[in-house]
Amino acid sequence: MYIFDSRASTLALVLCVALVGGVAQAKDKAARPTMAELVKASGAADWRPLDSDNTLYLDLPQGRVVIELASTFAPKHVANIKALVREHYFDGLTILRSQDNYVVQWGDPDGKKEIKTARKTLPEEFTVKYAAGLPFTRLPDADGYAPQVGIANGFPAGRDPKTGRAWLAHCYGMVGAGRDNDADSGGGAELYVVTGHAPRHLDRNVTLVGRVMQGMELLSSLPRGTGPLGFYEKPEQQVPIRSIRLAADVPAEERSRLEVIRTDTPTYKAIVDAQRNRGGDWYKYAAGYIELCNVPIVVRAQKPQ
Amino acid sequence: MYIFDSRASTLALVLCVALVGGVAQAKDKAARPTMAELVKASGAADWRPLDSDNTLYLDLPQGRVVIELASTFAPKHVANIKALVREHYFDGLTILRSQDNYVVQWGDPDGKKEIKTARKTLPEEFTVKYAAGLPFTRLPDADGYAPQVGIANGFPAGRDPKTGRAWLAHCYGMVGAGRDNDADSGGGAELYVVTGHAPRHLDRNVTLVGRVMQGMELLSSLPRGTGPLGFYEKPEQQVPIRSIRLAADVPAEERSRLEVIRTDTPTYKAIVDAQRNRGGDWYKYAAGYIELCNVPIVVRAQKPQ
Repeated sequence: MYIFDSRASTLALVLCVALVGGVAQAKDKAARPTMAELVKASGAADWRPLDSDNTLYLDLPQGRVVIELASTFAPKHVANIKALVREHYFDGLTILRSQDNYVVQWGDPDGKKEIKTARKTLPEEFTVKYAAGLPFTRLPDADGYAPQVGIANGFPAGRDPKTGRAWLAHCYGMVGAGRDNDADSGGGAELYVVTGHAPRHLDRNVTLVGRVMQGMELLSSLPRGTGPLGFYEKPEQQVPIRSIRLAADVPAEERSRLEVIRTDTPTYKAIVDAQRNRGGDWYKYAAGYIELCNVPIVVRAQKPQ
Repeated sequence: MYIFDSRASTLALVLCVALVGGVAQAKDKAARPTMAELVKASGAADWRPLDSDNTLYLDLPQGRVVIELASTFAPKHVANIKALVREHYFDGLTILRSQDNYVVQWGDPDGKKEIKTARKTLPEEFTVKYAAGLPFTRLPDADGYAPQVGIANGFPAGRDPKTGRAWLAHCYGMVGAGRDNDADSGGGAELYVVTGHAPRHLDRNVTLVGRVMQGMELLSSLPRGTGPLGFYEKPEQQVPIRSIRLAADVPAEERSRLEVIRTDTPTYKAIVDAQRNRGGDWYKYAAGYIELCNVPIVVRAQKPQ
C-alpha cells in the first residue's frame, strides 16, 4: 500500500480503466521500470520500521492517523508534543478547521484547557544547522523555494549552502505547529496538516514537526468548514479527538506496524528516477524532472516477524 | 469570496486565531500590501464575468460545481464536451472515483451509455501553437516542468519558445479528459479534476479542458474510494450526477453569476507579487518566488447590474 503517490506509476491504468470501464491490464512494454515494479523488487534492506518512540497515533471516530515525528528538525517541539501527548492534553479536543486546498487543524476550540507539564510556547525551529550529519539525499531537480532540495530520512527538505541551514518543506501531509505573529509563539498544542497543493511559502515560517504516514484520507476528506479560513462554525461540526498517543505507550497489540521505504538507497534513487521519467505505455511525454512535493514516500504494513 | 488561495493573505490570522482561540485582528502594519487589500482596492475593469457559453454547471445532490472551459487550449474537446452536455450524456452518470491527493473522476461506470451526437474520441490537444495571440501573462518564476510559465486568461500554463507550443498545467482544480493508452483515445466523456498536489508530470500527456471556479470543495471532500486507484467499490458509494449543463442553456434566474479577476492587468501583477513576497506581521521570511500552481485565481459573485 502506498500512502503517497502510488498515483504516479498507476496513472496509465487509471485513466484507461476509467475510460473503458474495464479491468486494467498492464502491458509491461515499458522501456523503463515503473515505481510499482521497483517497489515490488525491493529487498528488506530497502525498508525501515517506524520508530515507536517517534510515532504518534491520532485516534478519531473515523479511524487512526499515524504521524512520524521529525525529531531531527524540530527536537524541542517534538519533545514538547510528546509531553503534551503524555499528559493527554489532546484527548477530547477537536479538529476545528478544514480549509479547502490548504490545511486541517486541531487543538483546543475554547483555548481553556490547562497545559500541565509541557510548555505553552517554544523558540521557533524553522531551520536547523545541517553540518552535523543531517541526513539529506539531495535531488538534482531545481526548486524555486530553496537553493537545494532533498529527502531527509523520508521528509521533504530544503537547504542553503550559504547559510548552512536546512528546513522541512510544506508538502502534502506535512504536520506543523501553529503560531501567533511572534516566531516563538508556537509550541505544538495547535497542530495542522497540509491537505492541498504545497503552500511552500510557509517554509521557514512555521516549525514543521512531522508527516502523516497513514490515514491521511481521514483528514483530507473532512467536510470543509464554512466559517472564515475554513473553521467549523458550529461545535457539532468539529471532529472529536479520542486520543493522541505515542506508539511506544500503546500496548503492542494495538500498534500500527508500518515500514517506510529508506530514502538513502539505490532502490530509492531508482524509484525517484522512475517518477521523473515515467515508463509504461501510457506516458507520451516524460517530464525529466520531479518537483520536491511529488517525490513519493512509500509506506506499507510491516511483514510479520 | 476567494475560491483558490485566499489562503495566502489570511494565514497570518489563521494560525494566530487557531492558537489563541480568539477573534482575528489584523494589525495592518504590513510594509507590503496583501492580496486581500489589493482585491478590495480593485476596480470594475479588473474583473470579467464568466462567459455563459464557456461555463458548465455540474449539479450534484451536494450542490453545484462551476467549471470554466478552456476553449483556447482545447477547442475540439470543449466543442465535444458541449455536444455531450447538450445530448444530456452526463445526466444520471456518476462520480466513480476519488483518490487521495490526486483526482476525482466522473463518467459512465458501466461504459454502456450511448453517445449520440458527440464523438467518442478525438485527436489529442495536449499543446497548442501560441503564436496567434494566445493570452499569456508570463511569470518571471522558474519552473521545472516548463521552460516558461504564466497565466493564460486565468488558466495556469506552460510554453516552450523552442517549439512554439503552449499547454495547460495540472494545478489543483484543473479538469482533464481521461484517455486510454493511445493519445487520441480520449474525447471528454470521462472527466477528472485534480484534488491534490499538482501532478505536473501529466502536463502534455492529457488534454486539459477547464478549471473548477466554484464548488471545488464538493469534489475534494468526497470520501476516498477504497478500491484500487480510489475507485468506489460499491455502486452506492458513487455520487449521482443530476445534470451537467452549459450555463447559456440554463434559465437566467438559475445561473451562478460569477466574475473572475483578469490576469493581464497591473492589479493582477500586484496580487501575484503580494503572494510572492508576503506582507503582514506574520511572515518572517518572504519566499521571493511563487510556484505556478500557487498563483491565485480570484472568483466572486458578480455584482448586480
